[in-house]
This record gives sequence, C-alpha cells and structure tokens, in this order.
Amino acid sequence: MTKLKNDLFLRACKRKKVERTPIWIMRQAGRYLPEYRAVRKKVDFLTMCKTPELAAEVTIQPVDIIGVDAAIIFSDILVIPEAMGMKLEMIESKGPKLYNPIRSISDINRLRKIDPSKDLKYVLDAVSLAKKELSGRVPLIGFAGSPWTLMTYMVEGGGSSRQVGTEIKKFIYNDPKSAHVLLDKIADAVAEYLSAKIEAGADAVQIFDTWGGLLSPADFEEFSLRYIEKIISQIKRKDEPVIVFAKGVHYKLNKLANCGADVIGLDWTMELGKVRSKIGNKVSLQGNLDPTVLYGNEEKIRNEAVKVLKSFGKNNGHIFNLGHGILPDVKPENAKFLVDVVKEESKKFH
Amino acid sequence: MTKLKNDLFLRACKRKKVERTPIWIMRQAGRYLPEYRAVRKKVDFLTMCKTPELAAEVTIQPVDIIGVDAAIIFSDILVIPEAMGMKLEMIESKGPKLYNPIRSISDINRLRKIDPSKDLKYVLDAVSLAKKELSGRVPLIGFAGSPWTLMTYMVEGGGSSRQVGTEIKKFIYNDPKSAHVLLDKIADAVAEYLSAKIEAGADAVQIFDTWGGLLSPADFEEFSLRYIEKIISQIKRKDEPVIVFAKGVHYKLNKLANCGADVIGLDWTMELGKVRSKIGNKVSLQGNLDPTVLYGNEEKIRNEAVKVLKSFGKNNGHIFNLGHGILPDVKPENAKFLVDVVKEESKKFH
Repeated sequence: MTKLKNDLFLRACKRKKVERTPIWIMRQAGRYLPEYRAVRKKVDFLTMCKTPELAAEVTIQPVDIIGVDAAIIFSDILVIPEAMGMKLEMIESKGPKLYNPIRSISDINRLRKIDPSKDLKYVLDAVSLAKKELSGRVPLIGFAGSPWTLMTYMVEGGGSSRQVGTEIKKFIYNDPKSAHVLLDKIADAVAEYLSAKIEAGADAVQIFDTWGGLLSPADFEEFSLRYIEKIISQIKRKDEPVIVFAKGVHYKLNKLANCGADVIGLDWTMELGKVRSKIGNKVSLQGNLDPTVLYGNEEKIRNEAVKVLKSFGKNNGHIFNLGHGILPDVKPENAKFLVDVVKEESKKFH
Repeated sequence: MTKLKNDLFLRACKRKKVERTPIWIMRQAGRYLPEYRAVRKKVDFLTMCKTPELAAEVTIQPVDIIGVDAAIIFSDILVIPEAMGMKLEMIESKGPKLYNPIRSISDINRLRKIDPSKDLKYVLDAVSLAKKELSGRVPLIGFAGSPWTLMTYMVEGGGSSRQVGTEIKKFIYNDPKSAHVLLDKIADAVAEYLSAKIEAGADAVQIFDTWGGLLSPADFEEFSLRYIEKIISQIKRKDEPVIVFAKGVHYKLNKLANCGADVIGLDWTMELGKVRSKIGNKVSLQGNLDPTVLYGNEEKIRNEAVKVLKSFGKNNGHIFNLGHGILPDVKPENAKFLVDVVKEESKKFH
C-alpha cells in the first residue's frame, strides 16, 4: 500500500495534531465543475456510477482542480436499494425514482440480501482504481446512506424534498414492526458494503443521514441512530475513521457523539464551538460553512470561513467542510478560493 | 365587544392559570376538511382569500368541526407582496408564484408603501366578519409572514422547497445593503398590517418565519430576528399576544425568547421541556407534535400527544399545536381525536 503524502484529513479524524485544518467538500465531484460536466455529457448519471474508469476520473478531479485534502468516491447512496432488487432511475432535474416502493412486509421479504463483491463490484472497482490513480496524494473516502435515509427513499419511491415525509411516516407509525425489519436488513447491507469499500482501499467512510432531521428526537433514536450504531459496530476496519453526517439533527448530539463514530458532521445551522463545548472532545467535528456562502464574493467567503475556524477554535479534531453539498451553480473558482483560504488561515489555529 | 366564552388560549399566551391546555392547529382551515374543499371547489384560492364571506366561513369551520380553542383567519402570507405591487398567482399543486422577482434596489424602489385599510381591506373585512360570526366562542388569531420569509418568496419568485435558498442567498450575500432596505420596508408593512388586523378584531397575532431555518445562526439574527423585533415594537396593541413561529430555528432560542413576543412556537424537532429549562419562563411555548403523527392510529396519537404534554410538564404557558401545518391528507377524525385527547389529558397538568 502506498503511504499517504497528505494524511491531514485522517489525523484530524482521530483528533491528532495537524499543521493546518484539512478540507474537503461534500459533492465536490459534481456538476459545478466543467470537467465533471464534460464527462457527464457522454453518459447518464448511473452509467457514470457503474463505469469504474469514469467514476474514478471524476473522483480525482476536485483533488487536481480545487486542491482538497481528501477525495470521496463518486457514487450514489441509492445503489444499495438497487442492489437489493429495486428498479432505480435518475430522472433529469427531478431526482431519483425507485419503482414499486416498499409498503408492506411482503415487499420487504422480496428484497435480496446483497453480496457487495458481486452486486456492487463496480463501486469496489471504482474505489480500487481511484485509490491507485491517487497514488497516495490524499486519502479516499467511501460512503453510504444511513438505514433511515435509505428506507425513506425506498418507501417514498423518490426524493423530491417537497413530498418526502408523508409515506415514510405513515409506514413507521402504522407498521413499526415491519419498519424495523427493513432497517435491520438495510443496516446489514450497509455494514457489508462499507467493509468491502474499506477492503478495496477506502481510507475512511461516511454515513449520510440526509433525512434524519425529519424525525422527532425520540423517533430519531428509535428509527435512525440505533441502526447507525449497528453498522458502526459491524464494519470491518483497522483504523479507518467513520464519519456520521446527520443533516438537521441538532438534537441528540450527545448520543450521536457516542454512536461509535470518530467524526460527526454538522450542518450550517449549528455553531461548532457550542457543539464542542456541549459534547466535549469525544469526537472530531466536520463542517460547517453554509454552502450558499460560495455565492458571495471573495471577501465574504474569507470572512465566513474564518468565522467557522474561530468557532471551532484552537484545537485538533476539525475537518473543514460545507454544512451540506456544494450547489451545482457555484463558480469553481469560489470553491478553490475557499480551499486556499482554509489552508492559509487555519495555520493560525494549530 | 363580545366577551369571550373560551379564553383559555389567551390566558395560556400570557402564562396565566388555565384548567386545561388550549389547542389549535396550524393550517386548521385547510384541505384536510371536506367542508373546506367544498367551498374551495367553487372558487380559486386567492378568490377565497379575497371574499370575506368565504374566508370567514372556512375560518370558523375547524371550531365547529374539530373543536379547537382558537380560530385563525383564513388568508395567505403573500397578500403583502401582492399589495406592495407584485403579481401573485397560486399554481395548483405547484405552490405560489410571484412574477418579476426582486433582484435589485430598483426593483425594491418600485414596491408600494401599503395602506392596509385600502390595499388589504378584504382581509380586515374577513377578520371583522369572522369575529362577529364567532360571537365570542373562541379568540381569533391574525397572522403575517416575517420580513425574512416574505423577502425570500419575493426574491425567489416562488416557493417550492426544493429550490428555495439559492436566489435569496445570492441576494443577501452580494447586496446586503439592498436586502436590509427591503427587509425594513416589509417590516413596516407587516407592522401596519398586524396593527390593522388587531383593530379589526384579532385577539392575537402570529408571525410565521417559515424560512428562518435556511439561515446560519449569525445570519438569522441579522436578516430575520432584527426585523421581527422591529415589527413587535411597532404593532399597535393593548394586551393582544404576539406569537413567533420560526421553523427550524433551534438555535438562538434565548434571543427569540427576548424578541418581545409573548409566545414562541416550536417545530417537532425540539423538546418542549428542554427548551423551557433553557429559556426559562419568559415566554409561553406553542407546539409541537410532529404533524405526521396524525397519520397514526388513535393509540399512537394519544401516546404522542401525552408525550408532548409531559415534556412541557405541570406549568402554565403551553398552547398545544402541531410542530408545523396539518397535512392535507390527514383524516379529519384524527385531528378531532387529537383535540379531544388534549382537552382530556391536559387537565392532569394543571
């Protein structure tokens, strides 16, 4: 295995000493980059995910172009429901569609137990290839959706935020038993999948709980957190850190900090400093610049980035990121400017 | 003026002693009621708002049908941008559209200063009529959008939650000066409007900050809270309570509690008891059952309603409500069941 030339991200995940704060950006391999759009023009989104050469190519682009300290494999969280047997389609400008959404225990029983080495070989191949092509420049992150978030898509059948919430809540309130059967099944699949990604070369993994914030605090514990904990306890790993990003989950931060993750990702509605003083130094924190700040000019971007650094303060255990994915109409030069600013300004905090 | 037969809601707003917890439901005059749909079938949404007889009729329906302790005038927050000169259309199943969205100071300068007694006479007439027809059975609530939320619609030009956030953030980050000019103008309009509603007979007013949660904590103070405070300081009122409902604003609760409002409304991601112990007894709290709990069966609804009552605990100053508007596909009998449960169970907490 190649030794990493830049391991700032991994050290920060473990709250070790770093010379400056590492930065990567959620959805950094994405539509805001002309180089990404050039690849995407040739094939559709899912074909990109399923062609290891293309997935690896766009994975590495932001390392070359904007200079981030970690790469994240280009893929989609919905490859798991697809591997479990659901028909998936990505509809241009409308988002994902999963056909025949889950509504009953018989739907659940029809789902396959996945074998990542066969059913998701294309992702593992993309990971190996990206890892090889990175040749140790920066670490590579693998990811998956949380069971709650994946179940939400599987029950809703789609993902437009306007609608999400209706069908999934009917399901969990009227048939909680089946919901737990499904969550358990997904948790096993995700644990196997993330273990396989690590085996294929991922240096860290992130679990996205995009829809965690739909739940009340008590429901979050019952339907989401429990299964995140299950996954983390089952992942086969040596020292590879696990990051949990639960969007909108401003409550239960103490419980999140004890779920077994090394890093908790925060959205931009929280203050890093306040969260740190609340949960202590158990975990590293990742985040949390408002993604729309990248619509501002350089002065605005610098000021807001420094505010985030200041809020976390002089300490180890901070990975700079946005509080959500980068928006598709952000100028790439603004993303690069942010990366440069964080690299420069964060030295003062270490 | 008719003396109120049921003033539980008003007493709870002032943290006075009550025999049981009052309840009303955001969007209680809405599509989930067949009686509402029967009226709505005859005319379009805006015509309903602009026909005092129809607006008053649907305002009173939930008092008769599900037995809530307060009525809220049927209207829409976007009548203010319309009165200021923007063309408004409600597009079936797509949401509101404001034509020629605001993007510059010259757009802002074209907006009219409103005179509610002329430009929004139809709302005031609806308030007077509803008040008369209620004949003191329960109090009547008037409402308006917060300046931030109204500005968001005015700049975005629409309201699908999938998109909201892009244009408004570009605007405030690139031209904060103009944004503040517009916010100030809207705040004056809202203060005049709410004062006029109170004069027309509203017993309380609620300010909805639906998009407050889009903002980072610092930006919320600068672009939203400041103008809510301005409105509250300008409203002409005797003893009529002011409620502020800022969806997603889990941060800055202490500042919110000091904004001059009598009541803070909370969404379902917060725990009433925790919030109360954090901000003390300065204000009453309104909320906050997850609206999707009404998809559950009676046992589920009862359990969750009791949890909300327990979380607030034995104390004055709680108004029961959902944590957001009632969903259009909820069964009316479930809403009625909730009202009955709260009326019955809450006696134990007083």
